[in-house]
Amino acid sequence: MEEWYGEKQTKDVMISFKSSKIIYSGKSKFQDILLIENETYGRILMLDGTVQLTEKDEFIYHEILAHIPLMSLTEPKKVLIIGGGDGGLAREILKHSVSNVDIVEIDEEVVKISKKFLPFVSSSYSDRRLRLFIEDGAEFVKKSKGKYDAVLIDSTDPVGAAAVLFTEEFYRNIKNLLKKDGIIGSQTGSPFMYPGHLKMAYENMRTLFNTIKIYTAPVPTYPGAIWSFTFATNGDLKRKRTRNFRTMFYNEEYHDTNINPEFIKELVH
Amino acid sequence: MEEWYGEKQTKDVMISFKSSKIIYSGKSKFQDILLIENETYGRILMLDGTVQLTEKDEFIYHEILAHIPLMSLTEPKKVLIIGGGDGGLAREILKHSVSNVDIVEIDEEVVKISKKFLPFVSSSYSDRRLRLFIEDGAEFVKKSKGKYDAVLIDSTDPVGAAAVLFTEEFYRNIKNLLKKDGIIGSQTGSPFMYPGHLKMAYENMRTLFNTIKIYTAPVPTYPGAIWSFTFATNGDLKRKRTRNFRTMFYNEEYHDTNINPEFIKELVH
Repeated sequence: MEEWYGEKQTKDVMISFKSSKIIYSGKSKFQDILLIENETYGRILMLDGTVQLTEKDEFIYHEILAHIPLMSLTEPKKVLIIGGGDGGLAREILKHSVSNVDIVEIDEEVVKISKKFLPFVSSSYSDRRLRLFIEDGAEFVKKSKGKYDAVLIDSTDPVGAAAVLFTEEFYRNIKNLLKKDGIIGSQTGSPFMYPGHLKMAYENMRTLFNTIKIYTAPVPTYPGAIWSFTFATNGDLKRKRTRNFRTMFYNEEYHDTNINPEFIKELVH
Repeated sequence: MEEWYGEKQTKDVMISFKSSKIIYSGKSKFQDILLIENETYGRILMLDGTVQLTEKDEFIYHEILAHIPLMSLTEPKKVLIIGGGDGGLAREILKHSVSNVDIVEIDEEVVKISKKFLPFVSSSYSDRRLRLFIEDGAEFVKKSKGKYDAVLIDSTDPVGAAAVLFTEEFYRNIKNLLKKDGIIGSQTGSPFMYPGHLKMAYENMRTLFNTIKIYTAPVPTYPGAIWSFTFATNGDLKRKRTRNFRTMFYNEEYHDTNINPEFIKELVH
């Protein structure tokens, strides 16, 4: 049976996908989970009615959030992911010769469903360097004693439960988990549709770190389609290496030039 | 009365906008014209059910199509626009000290409605440097004797009547209208959703010109959200000047670095 599923990106803009098949529909302790098949975008994972990833365009988001910080480090070994239970961000990180990737995902159902139905991202779970903690990310960073080269936040937008993942306190706890010159990175939302999200993350990270940079990229199925990623460190964010793996969006020129549209430069300065 | 208006971007992906007001709805000799007001994107012009421009995001498309070619010329004086009856591309071109901008628009109704309801783009019509020809663009370039510094194609997608605007013959006729080192530029569609459109334009221009470059930018309300623009010349596309006007997307770094995602480099090489 064919049906359309839509996300209201704002109160008066909607993106909808016709499903050729509903692969999974259920409710976890935390959220509604819907997984559909769409001819244009492939498999689409929606959490509480919001597009989390699509098979066709997830590479853009995951490549940027992974490779900007990791290529800025000479020899990254240990990486922590807050969120990212689908495994897509881990897949990109595991392209580097890291020794250990920890995922802290609050919703076990997201992991289970990804493992079962989204092999293009969850294949990373078969890598023995990956460890999974089913736990609240904000709590985890409060009590963890581990030290990481990079901590990456692959969260939902800062509304409801995820709002804490954009606070200064959260970033300060992450700073305590970073090695000297370690890097924090986060998706920071749609600068076009919700500039306040980016501004909030940017201001809160800036008070804690010497170096901060915003990268933007198009993510076709996210609200406003222009997406922002913010990275901060007390080291630097210059590229240290050249890829020895394939990407579909990220490349060395993109990393090195860090071009942002004029309206983003006007937003934070 | 509030209603939703949608564009099927592919057969199974749709973007929809709630109209707080229908500003105009009618049928010209060439197409259905619909103009609605939407809180998020402002005024939205749809032709045959396809988003042509929105008040909030039109600047990205228009700035790139205008400023990449014009900033690549030391002293551009005469510019021809094929399509672009709304006036938005002309608005950007008129920020340069050109002496003359000719618009060749096939549909007079688009001009009339833009003048009446879309002042943020059509304000350019009050500039005396602008001339309007209501005519078929493909016919115009066949017979015109004028010489231009730049000819810019602000067309709909290469389906139906606009298909001719992506052919080698059309580009050859434009080449005849260009001064030595003059530049041709065209919107070349969604490389993500319809890579064939870009490939076709690129291959056809490449046979005629020595230098060719693709620029990409996000246009949130267009299919696939990642948009391509292709420029070609027998001169070069290096930036010759620095802006003495304000933009919201284009800047000098964007022009100079010409970064494209990996998947576009793999598409045309």
